[in-house]
Amino acid sequence: MSVEIKIGKREKAYELLQADAQKILKLIGVQMDNLTMPQCPLYEEVLDTQMFGLSREIDFAVRLGVVRADEGKELLSSLERQVSALHEASTRK
Amino acid sequence: MSVEIKIGKREKAYELLQADAQKILKLIGVQMDNLTMPQCPLYEEVLDTQMFGLSREIDFAVRLGVVRADEGKELLSSLERQVSALHEASTRK
Repeated sequence: MSVEIKIGKREKAYELLQADAQKILKLIGVQMDNLTMPQCPLYEEVLDTQMFGLSREIDFAVRLGVVRADEGKELLSSLERQVSALHEASTRK
Repeated sequence: MSVEIKIGKREKAYELLQADAQKILKLIGVQMDNLTMPQCPLYEEVLDTQMFGLSREIDFAVRLGVVRADEGKELLSSLERQVSALHEASTRK
């Protein structure tokens, strides 16, 4: 596969996954602003569902060979870190 | 993108999604064999979760440009048809 094409597909795949991760972060942020208590089951359910969806996208991208496994793992754990930071900040309010 | 490479990536993406669809069908089949009553909430939950996961993979593949939207839609509806046929067969047992 010529280098430019490979990078094109890789870059696009990675950008799509990063954009999806940002959407989840924004969704969780909005949820937290509107929630009286962040332990609310709905919040957990939305978060779990979205994280599951993103992890399936990442797994697919890795199996397709357009994203490296370590890149995918880092994307997910960085999102998890950001979400728990958001969560902590909201419980300190 | 040279034709062979494009087809290579497209074919691989489609094959991965088809294989994932077959895994869900098999999983649901096994569930049904072991379930006393197919209306059991666990069965519905497993099915919903797996279908949601596959739909996110398909959506990602379409946005990445490695699977056409109509192909993705057909893959999902064909799986839905097969699952409901399985479901009907198990309720007639």
